[in-house]
Amino acid sequence: MSFSHTKRAKALLETVFEENEARYIDEWKEFLRFPSVSADPDHEPHCLACAEWLKAHLGGMGLSSRLIETSGKPLVFAQTQETDPDWPTVLFYGHYDVQPADPLDRWVSPPFEPSLRNGRLYARGAQDNKGQLFYFLKAAETLIRRGELKLSLKALIEGEEESGCAGITAALPQMGNRIKADALMVSDSAMDRSGAPAIIAGLRGMIHLTVELHGPGYDLHSGSHEGLAPNPAQAMARLLAGLHRADGSIAVDGFCDAVSTPDQREMALALANPFDEEAYMSEVGTPPAGGEKGLPPQVRTGFRPTIEINGISSGYSGRGTKTIIPSVASAKITARLVPDQDPDACLEKLIRHLETNAPEGLRLSIGDEGSAGRGFRLDVNSPVFAKAASVLEAVCGRKPVYHWEGASIPIVNSLREASGAEALLVGFGTQQDKIHAPNESFSIEQFRTGYLYSALMLSALMRP
Amino acid sequence: MSFSHTKRAKALLETVFEENEARYIDEWKEFLRFPSVSADPDHEPHCLACAEWLKAHLGGMGLSSRLIETSGKPLVFAQTQETDPDWPTVLFYGHYDVQPADPLDRWVSPPFEPSLRNGRLYARGAQDNKGQLFYFLKAAETLIRRGELKLSLKALIEGEEESGCAGITAALPQMGNRIKADALMVSDSAMDRSGAPAIIAGLRGMIHLTVELHGPGYDLHSGSHEGLAPNPAQAMARLLAGLHRADGSIAVDGFCDAVSTPDQREMALALANPFDEEAYMSEVGTPPAGGEKGLPPQVRTGFRPTIEINGISSGYSGRGTKTIIPSVASAKITARLVPDQDPDACLEKLIRHLETNAPEGLRLSIGDEGSAGRGFRLDVNSPVFAKAASVLEAVCGRKPVYHWEGASIPIVNSLREASGAEALLVGFGTQQDKIHAPNESFSIEQFRTGYLYSALMLSALMRP
Repeated sequence: MSFSHTKRAKALLETVFEENEARYIDEWKEFLRFPSVSADPDHEPHCLACAEWLKAHLGGMGLSSRLIETSGKPLVFAQTQETDPDWPTVLFYGHYDVQPADPLDRWVSPPFEPSLRNGRLYARGAQDNKGQLFYFLKAAETLIRRGELKLSLKALIEGEEESGCAGITAALPQMGNRIKADALMVSDSAMDRSGAPAIIAGLRGMIHLTVELHGPGYDLHSGSHEGLAPNPAQAMARLLAGLHRADGSIAVDGFCDAVSTPDQREMALALANPFDEEAYMSEVGTPPAGGEKGLPPQVRTGFRPTIEINGISSGYSGRGTKTIIPSVASAKITARLVPDQDPDACLEKLIRHLETNAPEGLRLSIGDEGSAGRGFRLDVNSPVFAKAASVLEAVCGRKPVYHWEGASIPIVNSLREASGAEALLVGFGTQQDKIHAPNESFSIEQFRTGYLYSALMLSALMRP
Repeated sequence: MSFSHTKRAKALLETVFEENEARYIDEWKEFLRFPSVSADPDHEPHCLACAEWLKAHLGGMGLSSRLIETSGKPLVFAQTQETDPDWPTVLFYGHYDVQPADPLDRWVSPPFEPSLRNGRLYARGAQDNKGQLFYFLKAAETLIRRGELKLSLKALIEGEEESGCAGITAALPQMGNRIKADALMVSDSAMDRSGAPAIIAGLRGMIHLTVELHGPGYDLHSGSHEGLAPNPAQAMARLLAGLHRADGSIAVDGFCDAVSTPDQREMALALANPFDEEAYMSEVGTPPAGGEKGLPPQVRTGFRPTIEINGISSGYSGRGTKTIIPSVASAKITARLVPDQDPDACLEKLIRHLETNAPEGLRLSIGDEGSAGRGFRLDVNSPVFAKAASVLEAVCGRKPVYHWEGASIPIVNSLREASGAEALLVGFGTQQDKIHAPNESFSIEQFRTGYLYSALMLSALMRP
């Protein structure tokens, strides 16, 4: 079998998949039976058992595999045993931990007893990330068993992605050459809402803080004190309103100075993927009326920074009326950053803005301040992207679209920096998969598509 | 005994008080033993027993007394039996219900077992309003027993002041001539912080509402939706900030059109009572930096309307960071009104302002909207005020100060309107009394001062 001709290679892989489908599903179910909920200390032994299982499974695939201890859950690390100095190196990242399964009573079948219904496998982690991870492993296994894997493959699979990535983040800087790679493959994302395959071309960085305004020592009777005492709730409204101009742009001095502008090709690719306002409205319940006025939605989420209020709390919020001036008001703020905004500098500018505009008579305090990493954009003109586009078109029969995601995945940037690799983020999730919610599922069809993409993409990366 | 000469009259009353002090305290304690907590349905029988006791007590004083049923707790109504068409009529208002006593474990002695310590009587209601009500009754009793009460006295004592005044408010319009009076005396207020006696010369009206902004159908992941979804928390901050200008003045169109300006004498009297910024700071914990810039504190609370935020609630307020765009934001708003602002018109203008400025993409809803009556200012040039000033100076040895209160007491305005009487609000409370809090108390000295004032004031009102 030769993978040099993609069309023929795809047909061969389809046959291999068909022959092995039943086994793949059985093994995937085995993987899903571990309740590897990283956020819940009660599930600690299940996480460890899952890591051990995965290590053994990777060993069975012909890789050398081991566990790497961290401050938290162990990392599973595996690599090909045969290698050639001329071969490129591919680092694969995934996670074996899952979200908590609550609320349990809303699951049709128990979350850790995988159930195949109408071509979909239902279980916690069926998609995120055990399903998307496992099709990649089965694709690699196929190439290894057929002696076709002409690259050095490393797999780094962590157990704390759903609870903050602390272990891997601390471990990465010490891993040195072990994780150096040419390409970083991650399958933890979704297709486009249109059904087209999607390549993630950028992610935003994030900073966060809590701001409090402390006023009177206790909630005051508003009648006697209205017009006298400074009101923290009112002052907070003014302070938060001052973070943006009327046109929705950020009013924090210097915050947007370093914002990099997308080039023409990036802009063209982003806009080539039409934003369906009606679909958004029916999914979310509001029109996409947030962010900066006059910019297309794709630009607002992909290429522009934002400052967002995640919560405000002050005074009375029960039924009816309570005539008080609250003693304190607090707000949670996050900001999403784009290249080349420095998170520390942005945090400092945001804090300075809040301090400068703090109202008379109240004490401002800042807490929980920190950064979850820089934003980045990948090089859409790179050969890796070109190869991925051609593989995805072959597999899905449609050209891929490029997503500059609004969200942040801090670990991807850390992995890029530690490995020196070019990142390639392609996944086959859909809204229907209900990740993080009850009745999570992943279809055999999605699994098969991911398998075909992964095998063909690995093959494409073998060629210089 | 003649009360024509105030100085001599005061000396005589002091003697009477001394002779009767022990009995007054015993009776006052009896009154305080009823746990007449109107807000708590479990205390319903105690409220009724307290009303019955009060009716009997007023009967024992020589008045004809009866209970008037309402939608809630009964009113106790009493009036003098002998009268003369030339005599003026005085209506006295008070309340026999008290605030809940919680938290019970912070009381030094049980709230409904009155305890006399260091010249202060400790009990729930010792001041508010059983104590202040009772010195008035004992003053009236003195005049009645000595055959000196040359006026028609009516007492209307309700049982729901601490829980909304619903019963009396509904009953008043039906009471017709029974409550017509020349003067309305109320003893439910405090002295000046300086220790000078205080006459309340005005109270503000109030309107209230809850405003909500509804956005996404559920809390959104802020990363993916920042820059897309309109954020209710952020929009609420902008909406609330827009209620005031940067100088603290009200920015609601037309809201202040009808605001009446105090005359020179009112302004002079208000400013004659110096505002102690340091005392405010140490009592409240903030400087009096609220309200409109450039106006003295006395003017801001007494003569200017305010719009105040009593609470804001939206999204996440726990520890750390939660990257969401909240689905909804709500805020509680009250506004204090001065003459001649019409509550309904102001409420309409406020709602129109909120609707006009409601942000794109979000649904605004208004609830809990209503009015707690108009603001009013009393005529500081009236003979009643002149008499009160002279009585207070005789009793306290200090000229009284005039308080234009920031707070609202809706029932006073209803009583003024229903009775046609000129209101006189003088009380002898202090901060030390801790009304509404554990260990409420009232000193025998304060009680005695109130007694002397009440008897001399009734005497003064007898003279044309």
